Amino acid sequence: MSEKKIPYKIYLSEDEMPRAWYNLRADMKVKPAPLINPGTGAPMTAQELENVFCTELVAQELDDDTAFFPIPQEIRDFYKMYRPSPLVRAYCLEEQLQTPAKIYYKFEGNNTSGSHKLNSAIAQAYYAKKQGLKGVTTETGAGQWGTALAMACGYLGLDCQVYMVKCSYDQKPFRREVMKVYGASVTPSPSDTTNVGRKILAEFPGTTGSLGCAISEAVEVAGSNPGYRYVLGSVLNQVLLHQSIIGLESKIALDKYGVKPDIVIGCAGGGSNLGGLIAPFMGEKLRGEADYRIIAVEPASCPSFTRGKFAYDFCDTGKVCPLSKMYTLGSSFIPSADHAGGLRFHGMSSILSQLYHDGYMEAVSVNQTDIFRAAEQFARVEGILPAPESSHAILAAINEANKCKETGEEKTILFGLTGTGYFDMVAYERFHKGELSSAVPTDEDIAKSLARLPRVD
Amino acid sequence: MSEKKIPYKIYLSEDEMPRAWYNLRADMKVKPAPLINPGTGAPMTAQELENVFCTELVAQELDDDTAFFPIPQEIRDFYKMYRPSPLVRAYCLEEQLQTPAKIYYKFEGNNTSGSHKLNSAIAQAYYAKKQGLKGVTTETGAGQWGTALAMACGYLGLDCQVYMVKCSYDQKPFRREVMKVYGASVTPSPSDTTNVGRKILAEFPGTTGSLGCAISEAVEVAGSNPGYRYVLGSVLNQVLLHQSIIGLESKIALDKYGVKPDIVIGCAGGGSNLGGLIAPFMGEKLRGEADYRIIAVEPASCPSFTRGKFAYDFCDTGKVCPLSKMYTLGSSFIPSADHAGGLRFHGMSSILSQLYHDGYMEAVSVNQTDIFRAAEQFARVEGILPAPESSHAILAAINEANKCKETGEEKTILFGLTGTGYFDMVAYERFHKGELSSAVPTDEDIAKSLARLPRVD
Repeated sequence: MSEKKIPYKIYLSEDEMPRAWYNLRADMKVKPAPLINPGTGAPMTAQELENVFCTELVAQELDDDTAFFPIPQEIRDFYKMYRPSPLVRAYCLEEQLQTPAKIYYKFEGNNTSGSHKLNSAIAQAYYAKKQGLKGVTTETGAGQWGTALAMACGYLGLDCQVYMVKCSYDQKPFRREVMKVYGASVTPSPSDTTNVGRKILAEFPGTTGSLGCAISEAVEVAGSNPGYRYVLGSVLNQVLLHQSIIGLESKIALDKYGVKPDIVIGCAGGGSNLGGLIAPFMGEKLRGEADYRIIAVEPASCPSFTRGKFAYDFCDTGKVCPLSKMYTLGSSFIPSADHAGGLRFHGMSSILSQLYHDGYMEAVSVNQTDIFRAAEQFARVEGILPAPESSHAILAAINEANKCKETGEEKTILFGLTGTGYFDMVAYERFHKGELSSAVPTDEDIAKSLARLPRVD
Repeated sequence: MSEKKIPYKIYLSEDEMPRAWYNLRADMKVKPAPLINPGTGAPMTAQELENVFCTELVAQELDDDTAFFPIPQEIRDFYKMYRPSPLVRAYCLEEQLQTPAKIYYKFEGNNTSGSHKLNSAIAQAYYAKKQGLKGVTTETGAGQWGTALAMACGYLGLDCQVYMVKCSYDQKPFRREVMKVYGASVTPSPSDTTNVGRKILAEFPGTTGSLGCAISEAVEVAGSNPGYRYVLGSVLNQVLLHQSIIGLESKIALDKYGVKPDIVIGCAGGGSNLGGLIAPFMGEKLRGEADYRIIAVEPASCPSFTRGKFAYDFCDTGKVCPLSKMYTLGSSFIPSADHAGGLRFHGMSSILSQLYHDGYMEAVSVNQTDIFRAAEQFARVEGILPAPESSHAILAAINEANKCKETGEEKTILFGLTGTGYFDMVAYERFHKGELSSAVPTDEDIAKSLARLPRVD
């Protein structure tokens, strides 16, 4: 392969930016299983979903066939404020590792939300605004999604109510203030402001919370306030659709220089970044046009792919949401309080779950102390202070690059650097003090929460 | 003027990036006054300066004639990791203001130090490394400079000892951890680790510190440890030289689209950002090739240009540094503890002081509560959460754009957005709670510290 001289960062011009999101489902032979109404056991209808979600987002959620959705001009204009994100050639990391591998990363942290989450936040807020709603509710874990939604709502003049996982609320106090700068209200979850929150607090006093709890609360508030809908930052098909912008931009940038990755690596919590990053590559793989190794990296403390079960489960602890077929640890699973940062959702995108189940991708789990070590190593040579979440992908990329060093193979590795760690300094401080462990759930822990899976025929 | 369609963000390709720094002094008819040895009253010699500063940096400091200094390849490679910084057309702000003005800002916050300071940090660390030194010492106020230097030293494998102004050390605890990620040690100033620190603590117990104190401590440590030199993030001629990259990139980007700014606005503390941003524009003005309104914006709580005196003064509270002729509030001046964030230096770059004295630029001072209001307004439409420092320039730009609205003039405004406010959330929180005031020094306060100015014949 003759490579042109590759710059440190590849940017696209506005003309080169994607004009449509890519819907991976259109190319899947086995489609992801539909959402199920836990009451009736039947697939959720559009009408049922529209009680919770915006109408156009429901259409996107349910559409398994349309390959491309045009990105509305208003969203493209917003994207222009912080996109295209740079595709970076990690020359300095390569040199430090002394690897023949060529490493690229797509850096999504150059916006105030600090992550890729803004890509879907502006889309969801846009459709809510277009539908004439007053506001939206949501949950946030590490806080990136809440900040992203607050930014999008602040821009469009929508009310934004955020339920924030309690341990993140405590660990990341500054996130609250950022959300307030953009006009959002923030409540630690579980809270006593909802029925489901009060119930969870009664059952598990002293809980540090989970995304599942926070989702239940946000859904309840949206359902009981006219003019409000619930929006979600990951897991859903619509979110993966919006996040395809990450992969599409990456592919256009690489194509400009005739580069084809051998391995594509993304961290995986609910799957929004991973699903977005891999979308066009997986599309080629599904259509038989190209082959890529695709690797999902998840925390060993919340290992839904590697130790979960492929089954229908609730997306939320309070069991107010539809059932989704996915790799899950059980909706009552709560990762160790010692686990810093995000990627703490008990389940996984049903699109990615189906693809993993069908053998189109691999998954690995990594330990928390190792990812902080990789984060620091990366920061010192590449400059960027990565979020702990993103550092899962960094670690896996370093591991693959080190394998290339052993074998002498000049593989091309692309990974997703989802965001910055500026609001994770409490976790970094604990790492520096040696206070972070790598607590991993026991088989018993997982079996216990899996025993509570709902029965679906 | 026929403008091409201007994108939201103008990036330069690596080929278009500047290969040399521009030394404004070469085009000044009246050169900035030389540094004076307080002991002898004579101009500092290169040899004297080399006890404190790296040799090549001393050469840059003293050179009033060379217009362009080639940027070493190693520094250009480092620049490629986070530069070019985007030049942004503030379409959303313009629309919100309903102004006919065209607003551009050069955004220097897209790197982990969160500001423009990295531009000089890597240069100074590079020359220290080249000279075979073990490490460098420095002071930091808001923490951006310290972080920037820590990053540069981490990258090059140099030891980095940072003295951090005590009130920032307390207000911005996360900055400490970021510096530690990059391997730096951080000490709150004044401290009991130096003679000058102990003396200041004895004289002003309970002081919240000042850049002047921290400089004295860092200089003392560098002077008493072989293999160490002191480096400074602002004020000095060499720093303005390195920061000219900001203005050079801005000008190249604007020239690509045939745009010529009418007004160039920068916030001013020690002057590094302002001096860097305006460099090529001021150069044209000095050479009589073009005219620009150039506006320095400073905090009303630390108003060296607008209420200081143009005189020789110490750069540091401890009076261990050479004397510099500059606009100063007196080296014993300490801004109100209520003043959040940076721009708290009592003096000003001697280059900028001379230019201001000679009528080549204007200066305005603004109140703290107004700048936070402008910051929030900006964040909601432009997405970026600005540092309080940068928000001084935002406020002045908004004020100029509003004047254009009144007069109907389509002026083009360029301002420097020096950094992000992610580590300023304590200040934003105080602003939200209404706890921030706009404490301004009395005439008596200023007269008192000016009374202590050294005598220079």
